Amino acid sequence: MSRLDVTEKIITTKVSKGIKWADVATSVGLSKEWVTAACLGQMTLTAQQAATVGEIFELTAEEQKWLQVVPYKGSLPTAVPTDPLIYRFYELVSVYGTTFKELIHEEFGDGIMSAIDFKMDLQREPNAAGDRVSIAMSGKFLPYKTY
Amino acid sequence: MSRLDVTEKIITTKVSKGIKWADVATSVGLSKEWVTAACLGQMTLTAQQAATVGEIFELTAEEQKWLQVVPYKGSLPTAVPTDPLIYRFYELVSVYGTTFKELIHEEFGDGIMSAIDFKMDLQREPNAAGDRVSIAMSGKFLPYKTY
Amino acid sequence: MSRLDVTEKIITTKVSKGIKWADVATSVGLSKEWVTAACLGQMTLTAQQAATVGEIFELTAEEQKWLQVVPYKGSLPTAVPTDPLIYRFYELVSVYGTTFKELIHEEFGDGIMSAIDFKMDLQREPNAAGDRVSIAMSGKFLPYKTY
Amino acid sequence: MSRLDVTEKIITTKVSKGIKWADVATSVGLSKEWVTAACLGQMTLTAQQAATVGEIFELTAEEQKWLQVVPYKGSLPTAVPTDPLIYRFYELVSVYGTTFKELIHEEFGDGIMSAIDFKMDLQREPNAAGDRVSIAMSGKFLPYKTY
Amino acid sequence: MSRLDVTEKIITTKVSKGIKWADVATSVGLSKEWVTAACLGQMTLTAQQAATVGEIFELTAEEQKWLQVVPYKGSLPTAVPTDPLIYRFYELVSVYGTTFKELIHEEFGDGIMSAIDFKMDLQREPNAAGDRVSIAMSGKFLPYKTY
Amino acid sequence: MSRLDVTEKIITTKVSKGIKWADVATSVGLSKEWVTAACLGQMTLTAQQAATVGEIFELTAEEQKWLQVVPYKGSLPTAVPTDPLIYRFYELVSVYGTTFKELIHEEFGDGIMSAIDFKMDLQREPNAAGDRVSIAMSGKFLPYKTY
Amino acid sequence: MSRLDVTEKIITTKVSKGIKWADVATSVGLSKEWVTAACLGQMTLTAQQAATVGEIFELTAEEQKWLQVVPYKGSLPTAVPTDPLIYRFYELVSVYGTTFKELIHEEFGDGIMSAIDFKMDLQREPNAAGDRVSIAMSGKFLPYKTY
Amino acid sequence: MSRLDVTEKIITTKVSKGIKWADVATSVGLSKEWVTAACLGQMTLTAQQAATVGEIFELTAEEQKWLQVVPYKGSLPTAVPTDPLIYRFYELVSVYGTTFKELIHEEFGDGIMSAIDFKMDLQREPNAAGDRVSIAMSGKFLPYKTY
Amino acid sequence: MSRLDVTEKIITTKVSKGIKWADVATSVGLSKEWVTAACLGQMTLTAQQAATVGEIFELTAEEQKWLQVVPYKGSLPTAVPTDPLIYRFYELVSVYGTTFKELIHEEFGDGIMSAIDFKMDLQREPNAAGDRVSIAMSGKFLPYKTY
Amino acid sequence: MSRLDVTEKIITTKVSKGIKWADVATSVGLSKEWVTAACLGQMTLTAQQAATVGEIFELTAEEQKWLQVVPYKGSLPTAVPTDPLIYRFYELVSVYGTTFKELIHEEFGDGIMSAIDFKMDLQREPNAAGDRVSIAMSGKFLPYKTY
Repeated sequence: MSRLDVTEKIITTKVSKGIKWADVATSVGLSKEWVTAACLGQMTLTAQQAATVGEIFELTAEEQKWLQVVPYKGSLPTAVPTDPLIYRFYELVSVYGTTFKELIHEEFGDGIMSAIDFKMDLQREPNAAGDRVSIAMSGKFLPYKTY
Repeated sequence: MSRLDVTEKIITTKVSKGIKWADVATSVGLSKEWVTAACLGQMTLTAQQAATVGEIFELTAEEQKWLQVVPYKGSLPTAVPTDPLIYRFYELVSVYGTTFKELIHEEFGDGIMSAIDFKMDLQREPNAAGDRVSIAMSGKFLPYKTY
Repeated sequence: MSRLDVTEKIITTKVSKGIKWADVATSVGLSKEWVTAACLGQMTLTAQQAATVGEIFELTAEEQKWLQVVPYKGSLPTAVPTDPLIYRFYELVSVYGTTFKELIHEEFGDGIMSAIDFKMDLQREPNAAGDRVSIAMSGKFLPYKTY
Repeated sequence: MSRLDVTEKIITTKVSKGIKWADVATSVGLSKEWVTAACLGQMTLTAQQAATVGEIFELTAEEQKWLQVVPYKGSLPTAVPTDPLIYRFYELVSVYGTTFKELIHEEFGDGIMSAIDFKMDLQREPNAAGDRVSIAMSGKFLPYKTY
Repeated sequence: MSRLDVTEKIITTKVSKGIKWADVATSVGLSKEWVTAACLGQMTLTAQQAATVGEIFELTAEEQKWLQVVPYKGSLPTAVPTDPLIYRFYELVSVYGTTFKELIHEEFGDGIMSAIDFKMDLQREPNAAGDRVSIAMSGKFLPYKTY
Repeated sequence: MSRLDVTEKIITTKVSKGIKWADVATSVGLSKEWVTAACLGQMTLTAQQAATVGEIFELTAEEQKWLQVVPYKGSLPTAVPTDPLIYRFYELVSVYGTTFKELIHEEFGDGIMSAIDFKMDLQREPNAAGDRVSIAMSGKFLPYKTY
Repeated sequence: MSRLDVTEKIITTKVSKGIKWADVATSVGLSKEWVTAACLGQMTLTAQQAATVGEIFELTAEEQKWLQVVPYKGSLPTAVPTDPLIYRFYELVSVYGTTFKELIHEEFGDGIMSAIDFKMDLQREPNAAGDRVSIAMSGKFLPYKTY
Repeated sequence: MSRLDVTEKIITTKVSKGIKWADVATSVGLSKEWVTAACLGQMTLTAQQAATVGEIFELTAEEQKWLQVVPYKGSLPTAVPTDPLIYRFYELVSVYGTTFKELIHEEFGDGIMSAIDFKMDLQREPNAAGDRVSIAMSGKFLPYKTY
Repeated sequence: MSRLDVTEKIITTKVSKGIKWADVATSVGLSKEWVTAACLGQMTLTAQQAATVGEIFELTAEEQKWLQVVPYKGSLPTAVPTDPLIYRFYELVSVYGTTFKELIHEEFGDGIMSAIDFKMDLQREPNAAGDRVSIAMSGKFLPYKTY
Repeated sequence: MSRLDVTEKIITTKVSKGIKWADVATSVGLSKEWVTAACLGQMTLTAQQAATVGEIFELTAEEQKWLQVVPYKGSLPTAVPTDPLIYRFYELVSVYGTTFKELIHEEFGDGIMSAIDFKMDLQREPNAAGDRVSIAMSGKFLPYKTY
């Protein structure tokens, strides 16, 4: 058994029972972004969170233990993603990558935006010309230090 | 001559004259995100925008014309970026890619967040534990249609 | 179970029962292009469409549910396709890619032809020197906007 | 000197003189699709066509000779294109590749759509919800034969 | 079930029963080159050919149907083949590729040698210094046409 | 200076002077296949052959020396060739690779067809339905030996 | 069943029974280098050799037949090997590749060292500063010939 | 200036002056294998060795200094080499890689053959059936140690 | 059965029984770094070590034998690791690679730090601004030698 | 001009003047690890540090400005490094990657060792059996947080 098996069981159960990520997040008491990532095998749950998720997706005690083990991360099967929705994010990195770099350095100096001490919030943004996806990201700036 | 030559001249001039992207954006009258991307060879300028940028970076009339030609986009030298700052964004796509997908589909159904009808705003977010990089993205949702 | 399992069952059943895509499309009431893509795991069906497809391919209720889940798209096993028929399309992108780009930009300015708000029609074109494959594509033009 | 040098000179001259592909095509007396591909280094011109193109782009006799040499084709710098407009075509091959295959085989049997005995026509398709790019492709069907 | 399963069964049965490709070809009444390629999952058989092959390799009716479905072609597991015999052919393309190109263009002009309307004959060529492999290939020349 | 420089000079001179490979081969007194490969930087010439080629392409004594140095072989810029004519040969290896392997092993046992002790002859094959490219290859069979 | 299955059974049996390659080679009556390569799925055995190997590793008649079929060669899972011992050999090719080329050409002229008509002998070389691995390789030189 | 520039100058001078590696090695007083690798930019020379090599290839004092700097090693332009001679060595690693591994481990236990504390000797081996290339390699065995 | 199967069983048992690597190391009597690497399929155990590990993870005699076989090393599924923790180490090689090279060469001359005769120690380093990971590595310097 | 040009000038000057990194570090007043990385184009200097470095390497005012611009990081030409010294570090990541992951998670929980808030110290470790390279790394542990 591996974390991947648990992730696949969660996805399969989600389809057959018609579960919504937003509802799982409410039960867990955290954001839907973090909870979905965790259920998809990218984050580590506490015993209590695993129990909540386990009840929703009918996981065994063994499977719940796997949710508490730090997973090998990376959710995509290829380096350049083929799925159109996910590719658009890759395209943003490709087109705007040097822009992100220039503007963050202009504002903060040398360093990075942490992808670990990081959170995000994804919302529907109503718009007469067609609703929009709104994503607010926040990551701690980590400066390179001399030594 | 190519757009790449103009981009390199802009970057070189920026270093030697100590120009700031935020000031270029103010002169052009658009967001710093769009203007920086344009100066880095990812967007197409109007004649007037090109004249403004041209004056700042001492571009010839020929070079200003290149700013008005649609460029071959993609700002990174490798498919998986080596620069730590840019890699963190790639890592977000890698770790959160399936999460983006699940949550957008749960909210909107099948489709994508446009990377074309898209805008973003990058700000410093003061924080006692260390300032954070805040990025707000907004892209139109485009549904797949049957036919 | 995954969408891939359902796709494989559809293909296997198609072979054993001798089903034609054109007939499936007629039953569903949509174009053969969209319906085939959907059966091959690239599009999302409504419950009613899934029921129709499910009846034709003898799918269980569980399998029909999978047809209603947005799939991870991308139908090819390698970045450069090895199948001669599909490679010819890749070759068109390789040889004519910059031509597509120049002509669309000359006509519309900076932006893209949407691959989401997109439809196509594939027909036999009778010809004395050997019949031809005729493909009519139509995709919405999406302009880059300043902000 | 190489064909690539001539292609780059043509592109540079096009920018500085503000030439339009449609006008070049009219002068040559062929479709804008074929002429643009030829000017971008993908097709071979006759002496007369080369002379016409040469006059427009101020090419030397030497450079016109290069236009009459069969070029090494393939217009893109990477196997998976980074430019958003061109990527959308790659995405169509990725998402619809197996659909193209199934429908052409259902109609014609085993074989391919030629990318050599091939022509296409790209037009603006007016539409109240936003104009569309319309592309009509026609390629001869070539059957696999037994021997 | 897939065509790959049928191919594997054919190969396994060939080993256990000690069947020769040349004999299969005689039974089918076509060249050994085409028949071997078909048995290895690269060509499409008629019902009658499939019945003949099916009898030799003890295929079920279901499996014989798969032989009549156009397969996803490409017989090698990696882009650069690791098997020494097959690599030698790849090496010929690598070393002589531009020579093929120059000589075919010098004789025929711009176009290609078809790999679809193509046949070949592989024979032993007795030679005192060691027998040789003789391969005669014949492919229709397809010219690029203007339009 | 490198062999590549000499190859490029040969190609450039060929275009400007309108030289034919067949004529070069006649002057050298060898097949057009070998001579073209040599001029394209894949084979090593004797001093006398280099002198003949040097006269035709106006090479200096230094450049002629380079023709006599064994070159680093491989004439293509990418592992999977993008040029349609050369790709067709790659496709033949992809589709027929395992067929080559099976038939050569059935006839000769374990071993390879040499790509070194190898020759080929490329001819036009007149045909009412369109002329064909005929390629006759002959390579020594090299058996694996036990030891 | 495939040759790979037989290879895996041989390896598994070797571990469980504690068999040594040197002993297998003695039984077969050939070098340990050739016999090990054959057991690992890279060489083809005669019926008698297969019987000997089959007895040692408890192979069925069916499995012994597979040992007599020419295998698809290439023993490594990635193009650049990850195993440190095997990587060192790859590194030798990387660092000394051009040296091999220069010295063989200086001694023999244009051609290659055959990897088919090839044998090797691997021995322990006692040394006070730590024993060494000694590998003697011998491959027939194959000259390129003009034609 | 870089080591690569010096390597290229050495190669160019070797061709124009007709120098032999064996003679360079004699002048330096070391093996032809080590000296050739050093001249090709893979090894580091002492001041005295650099002076000797410098005199032979007419290097400046500056260039001789570069010979004394440890180079960035790896002599091949692609991960899988395209040159037939060098590829044969890569093929040996591919086909015999697991054999090297098994035999060295059987003789020595876990560890590697050093590619650093390594030497080799390449000789012509006269043979009535065609001379052979003989390569004797010797590398120190380095055991993995527990800690 | 393979070493990979044993590794997976160890990992699964670790999760279900809640075993700690540090405790396994104590039982084995070696460092936690070496023991963890061994349990993860990268090192070779003695019979006694295998017995100890086997008891902890409930391995059969057969499975314990596999622990004593030298494994095919390399613990990561992709050349550029996707897991954020492991990627950071890859990034250190990418950013500091040439620095490692320069400083080791400046101190020791041409050669390498052995990754075989190597040990490391990983500790928590308490720090008021947040605890740190401290890793001490020690590898024997191996000089390139002339011959 | 670009940072790469400055890096190359620094390296060239270092060779011609025989400068040592340790001395540069002393002049700058920081560790040799950080200073070397900075000179090799991986870190950003202050104006004062740039002046010091500029004096040592005879850099112009323009070049000193480039040292103060955040560089595009990543010091290696290929994803898998070919240089033996640097490859050994890559091998450590390959072999010990999952071990780093397990031990850090066992000690700290889910998170990473920062490669930004990171420092290291590289020293010679005298040893009777051959001196060793000792590297002490220290990186802040960054935990994943829920939100």
